Amino acid sequence: MRIAVLGVGLIGGSVGLAARERLDADVRGFDPDAGRLDSARELGAVSTAHGSVADAVDGAEIVFCAGPVATLPALAREALDAAGGDAAVTDVGSVKRELTAALGSDPRFIGGHPLAGAETAGVENARTDLFDGARWYLTPTERTGGVIYDRVQRAVADLGARPQAIDPEAHDRLMATVSHLPHVLANLLVERAAKAAGDEEERLPETGPSFRDATRVAGANPAIWGDILTINGEAIAAEAEAVASELERLAAKLREGDGAAVGAWHERAAERRRELLEAQLEGGPLRELRVLVPNRPGIVAEIALALGRAGVNIEDMGLYPAADMRSGAITLYVAGDAEAERAAGIVRDLGHDVSAVER
Amino acid sequence: MRIAVLGVGLIGGSVGLAARERLDADVRGFDPDAGRLDSARELGAVSTAHGSVADAVDGAEIVFCAGPVATLPALAREALDAAGGDAAVTDVGSVKRELTAALGSDPRFIGGHPLAGAETAGVENARTDLFDGARWYLTPTERTGGVIYDRVQRAVADLGARPQAIDPEAHDRLMATVSHLPHVLANLLVERAAKAAGDEEERLPETGPSFRDATRVAGANPAIWGDILTINGEAIAAEAEAVASELERLAAKLREGDGAAVGAWHERAAERRRELLEAQLEGGPLRELRVLVPNRPGIVAEIALALGRAGVNIEDMGLYPAADMRSGAITLYVAGDAEAERAAGIVRDLGHDVSAVER
Repeated sequence: MRIAVLGVGLIGGSVGLAARERLDADVRGFDPDAGRLDSARELGAVSTAHGSVADAVDGAEIVFCAGPVATLPALAREALDAAGGDAAVTDVGSVKRELTAALGSDPRFIGGHPLAGAETAGVENARTDLFDGARWYLTPTERTGGVIYDRVQRAVADLGARPQAIDPEAHDRLMATVSHLPHVLANLLVERAAKAAGDEEERLPETGPSFRDATRVAGANPAIWGDILTINGEAIAAEAEAVASELERLAAKLREGDGAAVGAWHERAAERRRELLEAQLEGGPLRELRVLVPNRPGIVAEIALALGRAGVNIEDMGLYPAADMRSGAITLYVAGDAEAERAAGIVRDLGHDVSAVER
Repeated sequence: MRIAVLGVGLIGGSVGLAARERLDADVRGFDPDAGRLDSARELGAVSTAHGSVADAVDGAEIVFCAGPVATLPALAREALDAAGGDAAVTDVGSVKRELTAALGSDPRFIGGHPLAGAETAGVENARTDLFDGARWYLTPTERTGGVIYDRVQRAVADLGARPQAIDPEAHDRLMATVSHLPHVLANLLVERAAKAAGDEEERLPETGPSFRDATRVAGANPAIWGDILTINGEAIAAEAEAVASELERLAAKLREGDGAAVGAWHERAAERRRELLEAQLEGGPLRELRVLVPNRPGIVAEIALALGRAGVNIEDMGLYPAADMRSGAITLYVAGDAEAERAAGIVRDLGHDVSAVER
């Protein structure tokens, strides 16, 4: 099989690596950045490097467009113009409505979006197994050719992913909610905190772990996120307005002092969070353990090592240093009651205080 | 010195432990839960256990009210009624305006709030050093006696904390922004995600690390948080309405497709986040490293152990398993450029891919 990869960053490079190894594909690569393209060839992410889109797509059965989201409409259009009448052209961008609207009338195009590996950019971080088990959304339209759809879906599955067809607008709404909205709210939180400092004419306020968790992605990757927010602007605007309405409603309840309503609202959120987490975990519901520890080099290792030796997998972890940075709490998330109990016993044997956090 | 602690959970118990050890105090304890009071005495958190508020406060120079926030006005009133004319009565609740308004006319009362240790409840987690280095807000009014204020401030400092006077309304506004608002937004995010699943008539959506970080505190400790949200309702309502306005403005920019404005807004958030984090860290600005790893028991230990051996302290850590749970990324936060470089080198020597995350 011959495929083309246009744009060889983390995602494009990983598509190339996986396609070469698992589809035994001849991978033709193009990237506007010649240095990056060289790196991709040296790393084996592409079989051959090409100086133009037209050259790269020559004879390809599937073309993966893997440039930044803002470049995708033009890149995919160029690929469609240059590719043969039998080629499939797809992409890996995180926003789908606009692109599908622009190109969906061509039966050779089908939008795509793997939920994988945006954390670490660059072809040097590309991996053959990046897509293993990952959801890979595909957004076929009425015009998409059945053979094209089938070919892309099979290839995506062979790369290790779990393809799923979704309406492009539904995709963008979903991403607006579970991915873009958290970024927007993180941004607003840091703005509010900075403003609070100004209002009280004092130093920036001291913040706790809840603030830190909530704002970890504030302002993340401006080069990428500015575009994503803008391109998915309509869906994000709708979410932002929905949240604004909810905030106004909550504010009214708070001003009325309706404690029962506020309490019930808060408890419902606890239940929703549990459902969301558990839907994504094998091994049983997620359990949360708090360990009180001295805050010193090696303490995380000591605990993680003991758990690792016993075969307990840590699903997630948070470190919460106390204000003096000399002590703190480690939160461990472990899947399943039995594993959580075992983990608690192991950590207790190390001499630390452990308690299960009830949600 | 004789003090009384009314309510012997994590905070009250830690006040007792620290007061006995550091102030050489005689600590008289009361708790409506007789079993908890027994535990506190067995753990040494109180010197003597008493069956009533009046009995516990007898002869005390300072009375710490450490019950749940909703109980504090009545508890502190009872303490003031029973305590001598020379006693100081303070509290440790996380909301201050209402309580100070109710009791601030008594010169013996001064509100207080240590920013410490809400993570793990229960007297069994009480610690002598819980307040070391922690900010401890005090909310004196015009009526507060100078001797009273001085005595409480000294005691708080002797417990290990850093006392700071703040207007009770400013305190509640600040907490609304940096503590209560993150909880409110986390709750709204899980509600939106659950709703999205319903709208698309599919399973609960798969979510990424940004969603998980942003919703970690959703629905946390309903017994405590329902009350906090309600009691600080006015300040939280004002924050909620301010965020609602910001969301409406952002939505307008997004609908206009004003990419430059959206991009600038996003970059400003990155800058604000850096400022907030750095204000709270010694050792230099926080650096973020991404490590790609297989997701197996022991992997966290391997990395943390190597860093610990080399004396590198991890300020914060996040684990982001890939969808297949077989691989993932570990994010390490290290203070200072030099430490971050050293950490990256150590992890690379273990054979992992490491990259610095540019914010």
